[in-house]
Amino acid sequence: MNKLQEYLNSHEPSEVHPSDIAKILKQLDDSKFADALKLVPRDLIGDVALALPDRYFDDVVGNLSVDELRHAVTELESDDQVDFMHELVEVDVNIASEVFETLDDEDKKEITRLQTYDDEEAGAYMQLEVFTADKDEVVHDVIKRFGELRKAKTIENIQNLFIVSSDKKLRFTVGLDDLLVFDFDKTLLENIEQSEDSFEPKKAQDRESIKDVVHYFEEYDLSVMPVVNAYGILLGRITSDDIYDIINEQATEQMYNLAGLDDEAEEDDEIYKAGKKRASWLSLNLFTAIFASLVIGLFADTLESMVALAVLMPIVASMGGNAGTQSLTVVVRQLALGDISQGDALRIIKKEVAISLMNGIFFAIIMGIVAAIWFDMKMLGVVIALSMVINLLMAGFFGAAIPLFLKKMDIDPAIGSAVILTTVTDVVGFFSFLALATIILF
Amino acid sequence: MNKLQEYLNSHEPSEVHPSDIAKILKQLDDSKFADALKLVPRDLIGDVALALPDRYFDDVVGNLSVDELRHAVTELESDDQVDFMHELVEVDVNIASEVFETLDDEDKKEITRLQTYDDEEAGAYMQLEVFTADKDEVVHDVIKRFGELRKAKTIENIQNLFIVSSDKKLRFTVGLDDLLVFDFDKTLLENIEQSEDSFEPKKAQDRESIKDVVHYFEEYDLSVMPVVNAYGILLGRITSDDIYDIINEQATEQMYNLAGLDDEAEEDDEIYKAGKKRASWLSLNLFTAIFASLVIGLFADTLESMVALAVLMPIVASMGGNAGTQSLTVVVRQLALGDISQGDALRIIKKEVAISLMNGIFFAIIMGIVAAIWFDMKMLGVVIALSMVINLLMAGFFGAAIPLFLKKMDIDPAIGSAVILTTVTDVVGFFSFLALATIILF
Repeated sequence: MNKLQEYLNSHEPSEVHPSDIAKILKQLDDSKFADALKLVPRDLIGDVALALPDRYFDDVVGNLSVDELRHAVTELESDDQVDFMHELVEVDVNIASEVFETLDDEDKKEITRLQTYDDEEAGAYMQLEVFTADKDEVVHDVIKRFGELRKAKTIENIQNLFIVSSDKKLRFTVGLDDLLVFDFDKTLLENIEQSEDSFEPKKAQDRESIKDVVHYFEEYDLSVMPVVNAYGILLGRITSDDIYDIINEQATEQMYNLAGLDDEAEEDDEIYKAGKKRASWLSLNLFTAIFASLVIGLFADTLESMVALAVLMPIVASMGGNAGTQSLTVVVRQLALGDISQGDALRIIKKEVAISLMNGIFFAIIMGIVAAIWFDMKMLGVVIALSMVINLLMAGFFGAAIPLFLKKMDIDPAIGSAVILTTVTDVVGFFSFLALATIILF
Repeated sequence: MNKLQEYLNSHEPSEVHPSDIAKILKQLDDSKFADALKLVPRDLIGDVALALPDRYFDDVVGNLSVDELRHAVTELESDDQVDFMHELVEVDVNIASEVFETLDDEDKKEITRLQTYDDEEAGAYMQLEVFTADKDEVVHDVIKRFGELRKAKTIENIQNLFIVSSDKKLRFTVGLDDLLVFDFDKTLLENIEQSEDSFEPKKAQDRESIKDVVHYFEEYDLSVMPVVNAYGILLGRITSDDIYDIINEQATEQMYNLAGLDDEAEEDDEIYKAGKKRASWLSLNLFTAIFASLVIGLFADTLESMVALAVLMPIVASMGGNAGTQSLTVVVRQLALGDISQGDALRIIKKEVAISLMNGIFFAIIMGIVAAIWFDMKMLGVVIALSMVINLLMAGFFGAAIPLFLKKMDIDPAIGSAVILTTVTDVVGFFSFLALATIILF
């Protein structure tokens, strides 16, 4: 008997979770995957498809009819509906538009509305299902209504009640823990006025940067946040599970950008797409590597008369590149986490320069001794030691200064900073070493 | 008038938030910082200190008496108490033990217990304040008791009721949204038995890896998770705000490890500590760079008779290093996010080799033409083109294989993989280029 069947048999319907199903499906090969998919409860197909890595979406769509796809969409929460339709469009535009046409008007309207938001905007991450009440509603009635909405599965995972005025503007946020201790016979407003607690909503604007919203969640330890438009009208809510995903995505983006990768192209299963994006960054690197070689070429005569220089020169560049990458990574990450503010720039540069000077001197002494003994030439040791100090110092300075400068210019400090840095450390490394050799040794 | 005063005057006490205060304090210089700290409401001092970057902790402690510190600790939740005491020990062991002695026995016991957990264990992140009830308690009484506990500020930010048996074992988790729709006149168990929903708790074990717990939160879209010990006895809970921090910390650790940085040393304000840790990684890099130079040294005669080789050779190594870092970063990150499973190894290696072959051929052609024209020597173009293909192919293979292998060996794939990779790409780059040159050009 297969694993999925086993899982479904051993769990109550209410305990079956899409993530568990996705985990089992991931381990199957293509032929078994199709069979197993047939066993998945139809209500959960949408959630299962979204819980699988993107590359499985093809297989899911290929094994479902348009009607099954429609049903899968209707069972999803609004933000997941948008994600599902987005994936579906990527797989097959025709099927996607067929599915979209069969949806009811409200779903269509909601999806269309959410699709107007850009990936960077808070609105793109909200779900429209919220639990609202009027300030003059009696608590008892609110709770009764809540029970009905829950039974109808119109709303799920509710932690807050949003109190809106008649023009749908958000007035207060009441946690269910607050609601539970309210006087049930009084209206919401009466309870709020009697309480010492604050019900002032911490809210996000739909067009606000999602990065800022993530910072609110982190700083204020929130698990839900209402989203309003420019007029203060309640549109939806963002929940903690969205925030987990966004924090992960942002970190992935930073790591990828530092390494010259495009996160969206890499997610795709198409090798050609990812390869092309990587090539564009490698082109830039080739260009700067050729530039560094031109610098080496300036000293062709020196190199010709002492081959030891050619042997040693990559060491200076490599140490500078690595030390610089250390500084760069720390500064990029701390900028992203908000641990460095604008006023800190000088402090950070000083710190990075101090560390790189310390390490520069340390490795200069070691490498100076190694080179002097290796090639039995004291002054060669002096040359490599001096160029090591110079290059690590530059590495520390530029490793800190480049991301700080990019940030100041409102450019993402993770993009391109690595390539600028290694250009600096390569050029300074080769130039300082070969120039000092030309002056001191000849 | 200073900014903090302004903020405090313009907000109701219930609306004043530690994070807002921390944000204002961060912008002040040392002398103003001390004055401003005096204005911070004493109940919030602990939270404010924890919301500030670590380097401010010194200043906070320096401006508070032992009694004020004690008060700050008592106002914190248990997990924050541990963090606070941890920071305090770092600043001054004597003050820390003085403060600890003045705490009441329960706080002492809780802190001591939480301190037994390792950083990697779920228990280290839990708070002990939970809202529990017996299965036979009538809902109405539970709610009444909840109101009293909230008034006494014994518990805050509650989203769940944990139902425990008389031996304190966790039986069910009931969301406040469930509780609200329960029949208030019946017992909890009666309500649970009548409901179609599942109240089976998704729980973490205190000695379980915190990484696994984070994955549960992400997969099951949780905002709270109870923590039990090996016997199933309820100990505490982990909340979404902890998860935000942990996801961020884990991503920082990965980025830092990839760049040869130690996250704990970097958090510290001491330059010497961070510098020493960085130096240990740079030492390894120096060692491998010298090894690469030894490889170059094998071809001293070839280099002496054609200086063009010395000029071009860093390009091959640099392109290999960068292409390899791209593969490495993708694989390390996807392993961390759980998007690559063990069975995927072959697929991933194939994919990375395919991309690097594609880009290898592309850049080989470009660089071959450039080199042939630059030094007016067709065969030199052939040599660099061939070595470029070889090195990028190796880069793709090892960029994927190294982290997959480390993961299989249960070693963190982010640690050390970059230095192994660049050793490979340097050595293969220099060797293939110079060996091919020796064979083809002479």
